[in-house]
Amino acid sequence: MRILITGAAGFLGSHLSDRLLKDGHEVIGMDNFITGSPDNIAHLAGNENFSFFRRDVSNYIFVPGKVDAILHFASPASPNPLSKSGYFNLPIQTMKAGALGTHNCLGLARVQNARFLLASTSEIYGDPEVHPQTEDYAGNVDPVGTRAVYDEAKRFAESLTMAYHRFHNVNTSIVRIFNTYGPRMDLEDGRALPNLLKQALLGQPLTVYGDGAQTRSFCYVDDLVDGIVSLLYSDEHMPVNIGNPIEMTILQFAEAINRITGNKAGITYVDARSARDPQRRQPDITRAHEILKWEPKVDLEEGIRRTIPFFKEKLGTV
Amino acid sequence: MRILITGAAGFLGSHLSDRLLKDGHEVIGMDNFITGSPDNIAHLAGNENFSFFRRDVSNYIFVPGKVDAILHFASPASPNPLSKSGYFNLPIQTMKAGALGTHNCLGLARVQNARFLLASTSEIYGDPEVHPQTEDYAGNVDPVGTRAVYDEAKRFAESLTMAYHRFHNVNTSIVRIFNTYGPRMDLEDGRALPNLLKQALLGQPLTVYGDGAQTRSFCYVDDLVDGIVSLLYSDEHMPVNIGNPIEMTILQFAEAINRITGNKAGITYVDARSARDPQRRQPDITRAHEILKWEPKVDLEEGIRRTIPFFKEKLGTV
Repeated sequence: MRILITGAAGFLGSHLSDRLLKDGHEVIGMDNFITGSPDNIAHLAGNENFSFFRRDVSNYIFVPGKVDAILHFASPASPNPLSKSGYFNLPIQTMKAGALGTHNCLGLARVQNARFLLASTSEIYGDPEVHPQTEDYAGNVDPVGTRAVYDEAKRFAESLTMAYHRFHNVNTSIVRIFNTYGPRMDLEDGRALPNLLKQALLGQPLTVYGDGAQTRSFCYVDDLVDGIVSLLYSDEHMPVNIGNPIEMTILQFAEAINRITGNKAGITYVDARSARDPQRRQPDITRAHEILKWEPKVDLEEGIRRTIPFFKEKLGTV
Repeated sequence: MRILITGAAGFLGSHLSDRLLKDGHEVIGMDNFITGSPDNIAHLAGNENFSFFRRDVSNYIFVPGKVDAILHFASPASPNPLSKSGYFNLPIQTMKAGALGTHNCLGLARVQNARFLLASTSEIYGDPEVHPQTEDYAGNVDPVGTRAVYDEAKRFAESLTMAYHRFHNVNTSIVRIFNTYGPRMDLEDGRALPNLLKQALLGQPLTVYGDGAQTRSFCYVDDLVDGIVSLLYSDEHMPVNIGNPIEMTILQFAEAINRITGNKAGITYVDARSARDPQRRQPDITRAHEILKWEPKVDLEEGIRRTIPFFKEKLGTV
């Protein structure tokens, strides 16, 4: 297939590019680098099956020739309010990527008769009142909350995708991506895993907010990519959760990080911040298992070991 | 003020135009007539303070000269799946009006330093699990449900509005409009009030689905317009519910309609349709009362009496 990936220079987009090239496809990458990095695709520069357009997909999309599939991964995704590339600091661009970008992709998918895959997110469930989250849970998102710029952009993108499927019969699919980690992730992403792994690799005590009883589920990027590619190759149209359902407390996680990295600096407890992050989010992956025969395979220890070299390089601690 | 109203040829947009002209403002109407009607603004043709542009606000907005306020009312709004102008049959246009249309309006409000007022809706609460609905209720909307094209478009529009307020300091406001009726409403709107009033005026028995215990709250259009104009003149930025909190069962309502119209044909009970409509929705108007000193004044009997002549004219039963 000839596959367009928007956000191809991002964490997930670049791994997807690698995987789809490996599967024998031709990949057209697109990115405007407002959050993605040329570093993430530098290794593809000589690949004759990879081409790249620097472009803001919220403005317009033009790709010469036939396109068989479009994967829309362009969007700021970091919840870190201090990160310049987080969605709190790019609210309008985030909403445009979800609405105008998705609209442009769907228009192209329609005229090209291409399969469309939307990168949605567990954030559409907001601060969930149901655990674990199944795909039919409507979520708990305040549309005028500060976090809504990302959540509502993705909810809108899902609705628009289904509208193109139902009304224009476009061959669409929607993946709801849960917490993912691995090489090429943004170290300033603001989420628990990069924060703690960074501290461990710098030999610092790990900062745990409150009592550390809040939980997280972490999926290694290769597992996530497996799930996404399976969905792309399927004929499923309704949303599918892809993530690792193994839930652990932040405290358990911090202890595991210290053990895996051999960090002896221990843990520092500080007051819980104002509750910006959901206390708990965990995918129900029954649909993914039934429809795609997918389940995650990389355990936390293995995933962290594979991620460490990238972090060390970024931190200059190799 | 010089005020732009998108959707000016619609039910609410045309009443707002009338009211704002009466208040001494200059009104620029805009509409593409996909759901609005030239009939609704025909009486303004000779008014030197009213001008009109036929335009799709999802494409672009250009207005010569200074604009002091922008009211974004353009959107399909009828939930009737059989209506050609309902959002089930205009899903993409509905989502574009909410996303691209709102984006265009906010861009204009930003450069013009104008007050922006978004017409949002009780539909952002979806099928609510909280009664009555306060503005901080996050709602219960399935983003991939068929009804989501309208609900998510408006949720997105709210988030984008708040993003422009918080990030670009645009002077924004959001009204969440509940069930409204009055002259110029769409008789094929598909909701209970026009359906039952039409039957009564044609001397037919009123169709009540199920046992008629499902409830509705109906606001007369003049009350709604009062609330919207008060919000426009205020400096409030957070969403405000405007609607009539008096709740009645569909059965009580049908009996009232038969009494007011003198219809002797009674009531016919039929099996409840598949639950396309929420069973119950009722505004909590505490915020509107506190912030705007607003409350509805027109009771149902008076409102229906004022609405009957328009219905009779449309039905050709004058």
